Amino acid sequence: MIVIMKLTATARDISNVIARVKMDGYEAHLSEGEAHTIIGLVGESPTPLREDHYSTMDGVDRVVRVSSPYKLASRNYHPNDTLVALNGSHAGSKQVLVIAGPCSVESREQTIEIAHAVKEAGATAMRGGAFKPRTSPYSFQGHGEKGLQWLAEAREQTGLPIVTEVMDPALVPMVCDYADVLQVGARNMQNFALLHAVGESQQTVLLKRGMANTMEDLLMSAEYILSHGNSRVMLCERGIRTFEKYTRNTFDVNAIPVLKARSHLPVIADPSHAVGYSEHVTAIALAAVAAGADGLIVEVHPCPAEAMSDGRQSLDYDGFRKMIDSVRLVAEAVGRTA
Amino acid sequence: MIVIMKLTATARDISNVIARVKMDGYEAHLSEGEAHTIIGLVGESPTPLREDHYSTMDGVDRVVRVSSPYKLASRNYHPNDTLVALNGSHAGSKQVLVIAGPCSVESREQTIEIAHAVKEAGATAMRGGAFKPRTSPYSFQGHGEKGLQWLAEAREQTGLPIVTEVMDPALVPMVCDYADVLQVGARNMQNFALLHAVGESQQTVLLKRGMANTMEDLLMSAEYILSHGNSRVMLCERGIRTFEKYTRNTFDVNAIPVLKARSHLPVIADPSHAVGYSEHVTAIALAAVAAGADGLIVEVHPCPAEAMSDGRQSLDYDGFRKMIDSVRLVAEAVGRTA
Amino acid sequence: MIVIMKLTATARDISNVIARVKMDGYEAHLSEGEAHTIIGLVGESPTPLREDHYSTMDGVDRVVRVSSPYKLASRNYHPNDTLVALNGSHAGSKQVLVIAGPCSVESREQTIEIAHAVKEAGATAMRGGAFKPRTSPYSFQGHGEKGLQWLAEAREQTGLPIVTEVMDPALVPMVCDYADVLQVGARNMQNFALLHAVGESQQTVLLKRGMANTMEDLLMSAEYILSHGNSRVMLCERGIRTFEKYTRNTFDVNAIPVLKARSHLPVIADPSHAVGYSEHVTAIALAAVAAGADGLIVEVHPCPAEAMSDGRQSLDYDGFRKMIDSVRLVAEAVGRTA
Amino acid sequence: MIVIMKLTATARDISNVIARVKMDGYEAHLSEGEAHTIIGLVGESPTPLREDHYSTMDGVDRVVRVSSPYKLASRNYHPNDTLVALNGSHAGSKQVLVIAGPCSVESREQTIEIAHAVKEAGATAMRGGAFKPRTSPYSFQGHGEKGLQWLAEAREQTGLPIVTEVMDPALVPMVCDYADVLQVGARNMQNFALLHAVGESQQTVLLKRGMANTMEDLLMSAEYILSHGNSRVMLCERGIRTFEKYTRNTFDVNAIPVLKARSHLPVIADPSHAVGYSEHVTAIALAAVAAGADGLIVEVHPCPAEAMSDGRQSLDYDGFRKMIDSVRLVAEAVGRTA
Repeated sequence: MIVIMKLTATARDISNVIARVKMDGYEAHLSEGEAHTIIGLVGESPTPLREDHYSTMDGVDRVVRVSSPYKLASRNYHPNDTLVALNGSHAGSKQVLVIAGPCSVESREQTIEIAHAVKEAGATAMRGGAFKPRTSPYSFQGHGEKGLQWLAEAREQTGLPIVTEVMDPALVPMVCDYADVLQVGARNMQNFALLHAVGESQQTVLLKRGMANTMEDLLMSAEYILSHGNSRVMLCERGIRTFEKYTRNTFDVNAIPVLKARSHLPVIADPSHAVGYSEHVTAIALAAVAAGADGLIVEVHPCPAEAMSDGRQSLDYDGFRKMIDSVRLVAEAVGRTA
Repeated sequence: MIVIMKLTATARDISNVIARVKMDGYEAHLSEGEAHTIIGLVGESPTPLREDHYSTMDGVDRVVRVSSPYKLASRNYHPNDTLVALNGSHAGSKQVLVIAGPCSVESREQTIEIAHAVKEAGATAMRGGAFKPRTSPYSFQGHGEKGLQWLAEAREQTGLPIVTEVMDPALVPMVCDYADVLQVGARNMQNFALLHAVGESQQTVLLKRGMANTMEDLLMSAEYILSHGNSRVMLCERGIRTFEKYTRNTFDVNAIPVLKARSHLPVIADPSHAVGYSEHVTAIALAAVAAGADGLIVEVHPCPAEAMSDGRQSLDYDGFRKMIDSVRLVAEAVGRTA
Repeated sequence: MIVIMKLTATARDISNVIARVKMDGYEAHLSEGEAHTIIGLVGESPTPLREDHYSTMDGVDRVVRVSSPYKLASRNYHPNDTLVALNGSHAGSKQVLVIAGPCSVESREQTIEIAHAVKEAGATAMRGGAFKPRTSPYSFQGHGEKGLQWLAEAREQTGLPIVTEVMDPALVPMVCDYADVLQVGARNMQNFALLHAVGESQQTVLLKRGMANTMEDLLMSAEYILSHGNSRVMLCERGIRTFEKYTRNTFDVNAIPVLKARSHLPVIADPSHAVGYSEHVTAIALAAVAAGADGLIVEVHPCPAEAMSDGRQSLDYDGFRKMIDSVRLVAEAVGRTA
Repeated sequence: MIVIMKLTATARDISNVIARVKMDGYEAHLSEGEAHTIIGLVGESPTPLREDHYSTMDGVDRVVRVSSPYKLASRNYHPNDTLVALNGSHAGSKQVLVIAGPCSVESREQTIEIAHAVKEAGATAMRGGAFKPRTSPYSFQGHGEKGLQWLAEAREQTGLPIVTEVMDPALVPMVCDYADVLQVGARNMQNFALLHAVGESQQTVLLKRGMANTMEDLLMSAEYILSHGNSRVMLCERGIRTFEKYTRNTFDVNAIPVLKARSHLPVIADPSHAVGYSEHVTAIALAAVAAGADGLIVEVHPCPAEAMSDGRQSLDYDGFRKMIDSVRLVAEAVGRTA
């Protein structure tokens, strides 16, 4: 940590900061610049450093953190890629995984039908929502446990592992009974009670970036899960909220190489939410793969116009098959498989 | 709902939309504009309208929703101000309420001391966090139930009602046992499991706007609570996330008059989080009151430099007293009291 | 245009709107919905419609524009791709163009050296700044006309057309004397005096999207240029400003397919500004090509550490050659060449 | 400037940075932290420091600037408030100035009529646009020099100084002939050719913050003007662009106290653009004054429904009179006059 003093800081202000540094068990390393005095904190101490303890002191201009606030999620401390197993494949390997399925599971028949269809088209795993986070209390909220049962049955028939969202910490054990991967949705990325529960569960987690969350926030939320000893975490970029109005979200494709550089965790892209219109989903899926994504999670519905949610961004079977074909070509162009 | 057809829509596309409208039980009202054909849906039907069912049809350019998606929270359906009782005062009345206290409760003694101090300075209620949403798993997470006990004791001694955050739906009953107002934090504004639980509790709720949430999102989250028959909801503007770097958040002061116009619920402002630096908190508190806020929630700590969280934005006792004095003058200037 | 009346609109409010519609020379088409009355404006009239004339009337809730505000830039009115000629190639064709060169031209020798290097690596055109928009008045502002002369000399030696920024309308004729493509920078995207001047010039224009501008704003700025009879316009996505801090900008890769769908103009991507760090430029360039970009504009410098501007995001020669190799593979994977 | 080395930096990387520091004429001050090595640059040198020269070096994690990049605009170097004279009053004094008038001047008669009306209501100066920056080339672009003549005539009759926008550097001398204050609009805040021209003019400047510009960007643009020896600069906060859809812009009221703390220049608020709806303009004007604004610039039109631009956010005469009355009360409550 570095403390930058104001131009107007007095000698007393400076000595107070130094005294505080010593009290916290660190050494103060003083640099007197042209204008600003700078105090570096060096050494080790059992006292964790709190930026506010210094930034609130008289004469302090600001405090600069030097180390990244995440450790377990950081590539600095874990240089090799983490591989997360999924259906005999691994997120983080050379293979680009494809997770596909409906926004919401709507019926037993349909769930099973879609599972067969996406499997045949080449999907690695199936997604489907049983508990749906809906902006409106009047919108369809999902079929709950019944939906999970349909998903489990689809897995039995197809062998596809199931990715599904969990929203309530109390329901984590129940969702674990049916699903292979717990999805933490964008709106819950900083629901710390939920992060704690999925961390404890030791189940694989797909952690979606929140609409207004920085990459650092995302890595800190991953850190919550990892700090419970659960290292099976896949990060997911699904678009952030900006002023742009022609698309549902703004897909932050930059996040793919940057997260891969800063963290060892695999990065999955969700082109469906990222752009919000089915006619553009494939272009964004290809962009994600070209940028280095380890996988895709895509909404697929046999008849998007009749979907109970997110129809506007869902691919139909034919669209999904074409997407997979294109994904394979781009994956190969960047030295991967799909 | 209005369906706007593309320039290139065919007669068949148009008749398909009309057929769908009839199937859903509405009447289709056709306007052939200079270029675009427009289809209005009129009448009543038990079938709820799903925008995606129309926006996914061939030849449709886009769908425009006419009615607001929130009803119970809307001033259209509830023209009079809702008054939320707090300690003999009412949020939404002529009086501007002041809720004050530490970010986190840190010890029994301190909690009680602060309660006395803010009461003496003129606070209506006390805030204090026992369960803290922290970006880092390594940061202080709050004292939990013990913290709630301290807050309850502070209430006993001072009579100040207690406002405290609840993060886990499972803990809502426990927090209700100790606190008067359940705070739903910005990061949990769309934690629908939590909204359900606080709605069910019938306890007063302070609902904070999320960092990337529109006013409409906020009103929809309020609708969740109201739809459980709990109408004791106070909205809270605490700043949104933007590109600006000199402040912690961007306080959306516009939200105060706009929310008051669109909804009957009281609007509280949180100048501490809104700007993030104690030296600017009073200016923002005054702006909020001038813009029509029904109350303020402010972080106060006897020694901000030693606070376990949010020290940089906390007022000390003297700063808080001065803020209240200024707030009173501005409140009077806009025809209110404080 | 559609006028949506408030729930509380009176019969008189409605008849006043209808009267206004007739006064403006249109027909009013009335739909009485369940709750809201809606008035569609149909027919043609020499009086242009102003939304504010209606939105300010008593009883009006809001006004919805039906037609896109841009015509010449719209694919609706010009379904075929516009091809913009550049060095025997065409932006908007199957070929992905590559424009490369330094942020600023720094000396005659260096300018010529870079031109040879990027040509050899496969660039279609050369970029280089002679007039630099710098946030600080104390930063290097470019070599001005001397820089243009160096660029012209580089073209003579290599045959590469020159892309360079113009910031002052008064300098458009001078820049036209030396350069092949006038770049309008992000900070000047709504500098309407400049748009007027480059439109008048009839020279090819590379129009960069502003940091806070929507795609619609970008198309409206293109419309300014097109409305002067200059149809040689290339749109450029270079990243928008968001809350994210790990990158310089947020590259809106969604804009590539969406702009291509809404407009017939070619879309170029600038991965250098889009991400801001050289180690990630290639990943973003590949994403852009996979998403359908018609070209790339990339910063290349023989020694980025010594560049007078934007060194942190510049590729060196070796990096640029590797980028081109990868771009070719991805271009082929999506059915194009580079 | 501080250079923070990566965890993986080698001894050679560190010595290369130190060598570079010496080459640039500074001293390198080394701190070896627990994990990261930090190198402070101290001393003075004629060589300006370029962050990129260091951030591009091997082993460097990032570079932290210590000093603010603006000097002339900074309160550090100019502790006292700058007073900008306007009609015998001073922006930056105890008095809150009110600049009022139409978005566009529409006719000679109307211009003069409005001038009398706003003067009578208590305005300090008149605003009115003769050159209008319009998103669409098909919108009314202003009456140009004729409009300036009407404004000059309005000044003759009322004594009110004239504030008007200039968009083209070439027109600065002409606008100076008629107007007292040159407005640089939000879209031109980083039009450096224009900043140069208005700096040279030595005329008073009202510099509006751009929609996507940070406060630091705004102060850097002010620095451009100040660096030409023109210190008569008023900063203007008029709202930034965010994801919020219920308002035209998001008024960053935080900017008022923060800019006042960091700079000595007066800060004017534009509540009309900030919120975009006339019914909320007064609330935002009051918020601005409560937060410490030195003045307001407000759109006023005799008949907003007939305005050629910005009718939806314009106050009528009665609304303006009421706003001024309320502004006076709030100004007094915060120890000022209006």
